[in-house]
Amino acid sequence: MQIRLASHYGFCFGVKRAINIAQKHKSSNTMGPLIHNQNEIDRLKNSFDIGLYHTLDEVKKNDTIIIRTHGITKENMLKLKSKDTNIINATCPYVTTLQNIVKNIDDTSYSIVIFGDAKHPEVMGVKSWAKNQKDIYVVLTVEELDDISFKHDKVAIVAQTTRNKEKFLEVANKLILNFKEVKVFNTICDATLQNQEATKDLSKESDIMIVIGGKNSSNTRQLFNISKEFCKDSYLIENSSELDTSWAKDKQKCGITAGASTPDWIIEEVIEKLKETNE
Amino acid sequence: MQIRLASHYGFCFGVKRAINIAQKHKSSNTMGPLIHNQNEIDRLKNSFDIGLYHTLDEVKKNDTIIIRTHGITKENMLKLKSKDTNIINATCPYVTTLQNIVKNIDDTSYSIVIFGDAKHPEVMGVKSWAKNQKDIYVVLTVEELDDISFKHDKVAIVAQTTRNKEKFLEVANKLILNFKEVKVFNTICDATLQNQEATKDLSKESDIMIVIGGKNSSNTRQLFNISKEFCKDSYLIENSSELDTSWAKDKQKCGITAGASTPDWIIEEVIEKLKETNE
Repeated sequence: MQIRLASHYGFCFGVKRAINIAQKHKSSNTMGPLIHNQNEIDRLKNSFDIGLYHTLDEVKKNDTIIIRTHGITKENMLKLKSKDTNIINATCPYVTTLQNIVKNIDDTSYSIVIFGDAKHPEVMGVKSWAKNQKDIYVVLTVEELDDISFKHDKVAIVAQTTRNKEKFLEVANKLILNFKEVKVFNTICDATLQNQEATKDLSKESDIMIVIGGKNSSNTRQLFNISKEFCKDSYLIENSSELDTSWAKDKQKCGITAGASTPDWIIEEVIEKLKETNE
Repeated sequence: MQIRLASHYGFCFGVKRAINIAQKHKSSNTMGPLIHNQNEIDRLKNSFDIGLYHTLDEVKKNDTIIIRTHGITKENMLKLKSKDTNIINATCPYVTTLQNIVKNIDDTSYSIVIFGDAKHPEVMGVKSWAKNQKDIYVVLTVEELDDISFKHDKVAIVAQTTRNKEKFLEVANKLILNFKEVKVFNTICDATLQNQEATKDLSKESDIMIVIGGKNSSNTRQLFNISKEFCKDSYLIENSSELDTSWAKDKQKCGITAGASTPDWIIEEVIEKLKETNE
C-alpha cells in the first residue's frame, strides 16, 4: 500500500521550523512559549531539555535563547543582545516579514494600522518595530477606527498573520473609503486554508484517508468533512492507538492529513503502525 | 421668505469650474465636448461663441483651446503644445490629481490597474500618463483581473472619478487577496452622494423644497425622494415655467436643490421667479 501525506498538514510551516530549530539546540531556553501547544512544549522539555523563560530577568550570561515563533519586541531584542547571550531566532519567517514591513514604512507619510489582537505577542512584537510609536494603531473592528486621530492622510495597513481575511478586508475597505491613499499589505498566512485544500486534493486520489487530530478540534473536523466528501473510507483518529489496521486491508492508496494542533511525532507513529501492518 | 440653496447641488464642482473658464474665454474652442451636457454646450456656443473641435487636425495656429473636464491624453497634449496654441486647461482638478497619481507611480515596482471604462475619455487620458504603457490595465469587473499577466507582485489601483465605490472595493479586494502589496488610491468623487447629503440636510430645515431636474433623471428623482422624506411640501420641476408660486404662500424657509444635469441658469431662473413673487 502506498502511504502519502497531504502537501500541507498539521503544524504550519513556521511552527515546524521552530520545533526543528529547538531540537537542534538542546538545553537552551525559549523566551516565552515557543509555540501555542503545551504537549509539544512538554515534549521539547523532556526530550531536548528546552526550558522556558517568562521574563528577561531570568536570562543568564552565555545562555542560548530561542526566540519564539511569534517574535518578540524590539526593546526585548535589544535587551537580550545586551545580556551577552547566544540568540537563536525561531520567529516565523512570515512574522519576520511583517515586522520588516512595519519597520520600513515611511512614518513621515503614513499612519499605520495593524489588524489584530493588541495583547497577542505577535502583534506586540510587530508594533514595537514601527519608527513612530505614536502613529500606529491596533484594531480588531471597523468601529475602532472611528476613535483614532490619524496623523497622516495616507495609511498603511498590515494584519496579524493568523487573522481572518474577510474581517481584514472590512477594516481595509473602511480606510480606503476615508483616506487619500491606503497601502494594503496582506500579511495573512494561508496555513489553515492550505491544509484544507491539500486534504481535498489528496482525498480525491486516495482509497483510504486517515485524518489525525483532536475530535473536539474544529479545524480537524473540517478536514475530516472535506476528506469524507471525496473519499468515503475516511477515518478520524486522535493517535496511533485508535488506528484499526484492518481498515487498510485491500487498499492501494492511503492518504494522511492532520489538524493544525497535531504534532509530527503523533503523525509519525500512525505512519509507522500503518507501515508495520503493511509489511 | 428665505431662499436657500443646498450646500451641494446640480453640476459638480469640476463642471461648474469648466463652464466658468469657458465663459471667460469667448470665441475659443474646446478639444472634445467640454462636458457631457448638450444643452449647456449649445448655450456656450450661442452666448459665448465657444466652438467644438473633434480632432487635432481642426486646430489652427494661435487658437485658444480649452481642455475638456475629462482631460485629454498625454500624446494629444504634446501635439497641442507643438501647434503653437493658447491652451486653457479646464480638466476637472480631481481628474488632474488622478492623472498625476498615475504619472508618479513607480513603474519599476508596481503594476497599475484603473477601475473604469476603457473607452471613456477620462480613462483614456489618465492611462496615457503612466510611464509603462505595457503594465497598466483598465478593468470594470473582478473577472477581468484573471486575464491579466501582471509584471509585478505589487499593484497600484486608481478609479475613474465617477465610478461606484462598492464595485471599486470589489476589484481592490480581489487584488489585496492576491498580491503582496496593493496601493489603493480612492479617486472616486463624491459629487452625487454630496448632492444627496446636502438635500437631506436642507430639507430638514425647510418648510418648502423645490427640486429642479429632469423628471426622467434617476439622480433627480433620488433627490426628490430624499427631500419628501424630510419636508412634505417638496416639489419636482424641470424649469421655472413649472413653478407654481402659490406653493410658497405663507412659507418661511424655501430650500432649493437640483439634479446633476441641471445647469445653473435654469436654477437661477427658478430663484428669480421665487424672489419676484416674494417681493
